[in-house]
Amino acid sequence: MSKSFSFQINARDGRARAGIIHTKRGEIRTPAFMPVGTAATVKAMLPENVRATGADILLGNTYHLMLRPGAERMARLGGLHKFMNWERPILTDSGGFQVMSLNELRKLDEKGVTFKSHIDGSTHHLTPELSIEIQKLLGSDIVMCFDECTPHPATEDVAAKSMRLSMRWADRSRAAFGDRPDHALFGIQQGSVFPELRAESAEALGKIGFDGYAIGGLAVGEGQAAMFEVLDYAPGQLPSDKPRYLMGVGKPDDIVGAVERGVDMFDCVLPSRSGRTGQALTRFGAVNIKNARHAEDPRPLDPDCSCPACKNYSRAYLHHVFKAQEIICSMLLTWHNLHYYQELMAGLRGAIAAGALDEFVAVFHARRAEGDVEPV
Amino acid sequence: MSKSFSFQINARDGRARAGIIHTKRGEIRTPAFMPVGTAATVKAMLPENVRATGADILLGNTYHLMLRPGAERMARLGGLHKFMNWERPILTDSGGFQVMSLNELRKLDEKGVTFKSHIDGSTHHLTPELSIEIQKLLGSDIVMCFDECTPHPATEDVAAKSMRLSMRWADRSRAAFGDRPDHALFGIQQGSVFPELRAESAEALGKIGFDGYAIGGLAVGEGQAAMFEVLDYAPGQLPSDKPRYLMGVGKPDDIVGAVERGVDMFDCVLPSRSGRTGQALTRFGAVNIKNARHAEDPRPLDPDCSCPACKNYSRAYLHHVFKAQEIICSMLLTWHNLHYYQELMAGLRGAIAAGALDEFVAVFHARRAEGDVEPV
Repeated sequence: MSKSFSFQINARDGRARAGIIHTKRGEIRTPAFMPVGTAATVKAMLPENVRATGADILLGNTYHLMLRPGAERMARLGGLHKFMNWERPILTDSGGFQVMSLNELRKLDEKGVTFKSHIDGSTHHLTPELSIEIQKLLGSDIVMCFDECTPHPATEDVAAKSMRLSMRWADRSRAAFGDRPDHALFGIQQGSVFPELRAESAEALGKIGFDGYAIGGLAVGEGQAAMFEVLDYAPGQLPSDKPRYLMGVGKPDDIVGAVERGVDMFDCVLPSRSGRTGQALTRFGAVNIKNARHAEDPRPLDPDCSCPACKNYSRAYLHHVFKAQEIICSMLLTWHNLHYYQELMAGLRGAIAAGALDEFVAVFHARRAEGDVEPV
Repeated sequence: MSKSFSFQINARDGRARAGIIHTKRGEIRTPAFMPVGTAATVKAMLPENVRATGADILLGNTYHLMLRPGAERMARLGGLHKFMNWERPILTDSGGFQVMSLNELRKLDEKGVTFKSHIDGSTHHLTPELSIEIQKLLGSDIVMCFDECTPHPATEDVAAKSMRLSMRWADRSRAAFGDRPDHALFGIQQGSVFPELRAESAEALGKIGFDGYAIGGLAVGEGQAAMFEVLDYAPGQLPSDKPRYLMGVGKPDDIVGAVERGVDMFDCVLPSRSGRTGQALTRFGAVNIKNARHAEDPRPLDPDCSCPACKNYSRAYLHHVFKAQEIICSMLLTWHNLHYYQELMAGLRGAIAAGALDEFVAVFHARRAEGDVEPV
């Protein structure tokens, strides 16, 4: 187990928890949202501005970084933090999800996965051992086990086989990680939508022992209702004294529902990707800035938001720079969306600390219901 | 003549001058470089960061803004400054140059120009009166006369006819501008590469009377040597107590040579456009960041530059984000290039004030000669 890595729960409200993950690179306030910095950049943002929105930690994608610029080159250049000018914690995924989702020609067996690069078609391998080695070379603070994200839908038989493979890989990931003080290794629960498989997976991971536990295999097309059904029991199957991380989630209401169900960490490309396609996420729902009705609207996206897009620009301006395909549109909308996400997380943390999560969630939903905006 | 607009020359060194243009929106230190904000944004930059590079004034393009979002809409939204969040001075061109260069189907007569929008193909007219009216609606601090930029090469006969048309339009522009305290109107000298025509144009403009004088019709393919030949006499034909503005110039060595020849103001898309195509402009020449030799270079673009690209990132990082087509590449290289241009202008101003322009220029050229970099 790592030495400087620890999780401290400061408040509980129902199943929700608020706390702090301590790392050698700084504290992570939970519930936490991790902006995604796929290729060593949170798209359209400078890292100091990502920090200014309130982000304590970023996510980096092993798959993208191993292909370009390459893990060994990154290590020679001093690691991912220095490379991308982000001194605070970084969590890296294992590459497994992208290998499966971005590659039609991948081949999976007990040893690992063979796949072709989406950049130049070259053949690559990933195994639990290689994934951990690459994440070490990147300098990741929180390393994820290499696993198979079970596709949805899956029969119970398929889900069981997939989950058990991931558990064997979790064991190999743990062995490959070794003793690394100051760095953490997270296991990933699988089991699709089957409570008994989720329980079996949690038990297997608990026996191996990790610094934190991710809930994998969700947000893959099952829908919010089915996801919440799993979250009604899955977090409770995992060790209660370790951080719980719901991978790839999500929309603001997904996050709120998952926090209510005991999840501590999230990551998602939605706020940054939406920003680049003209969608602003606000307390009142989504604003599609390309709609003609914004063309002469002097109001900001949200009059109470303190991000640069809302403080300094009208919807009319944002509409104009969207239509003119100006880079500043992606810059401002991404900044707004990340700011909104971090404000939401701060609100959730404050509500849990105050024992007022129910009221916070009621206001959250009421505002969205009355908002004159488009659904996400 | 405008009331709060004035030009104060504080130092001379040879033909070069250093001074301050006073406007109601703030001072413009000369020699000045104006970043181009074509469509109400300096591409890939937030305006507060453009300001941080040292820019005192931006240029806005009447042609682009009249088509989108439209001048009347802009006026209803409070003008260009508020729209784009730039409180300091803005100079707008007249639209004439873009009408001619971006439109193959334009029709020019004594009254003005008819052209088709490059956005939607709709038909538009521009006349001196309309151009001035649009620039008023935008809220421009320095308005440019509507003129015809004589193409290069042109026979003396063609150049004379074109220049005389521009002089009649200058007269109409002056009449249309009227009495606007706090706003300035600049005339534009034409005459191609013919000293007598340039002299005739300068005389005509001087009789009308303007707050400043642009040197038009250069940087249109004639090359630096031919441009400097014109600049050896053209600035001296214009009133010495008013700012002289060389439109659309230029590369760093163009600017240095023009300052030596008595020019006070410049604008050019080069630093911002180069930034978006992977070219960094430095004291040592241009760096093409896409070249493979930068892939593992841990050095900054320029170790002595204080811009964010140089302070926080290696050439290896910039190469990576260029190859990955990440927006941050455009953001960082544009920032660097604009920073370098403003540093260059500050250096020129300081050298003129110290009576040491020759030494400054010698060092400028020596550094570029020894630089291990690509020519611009």
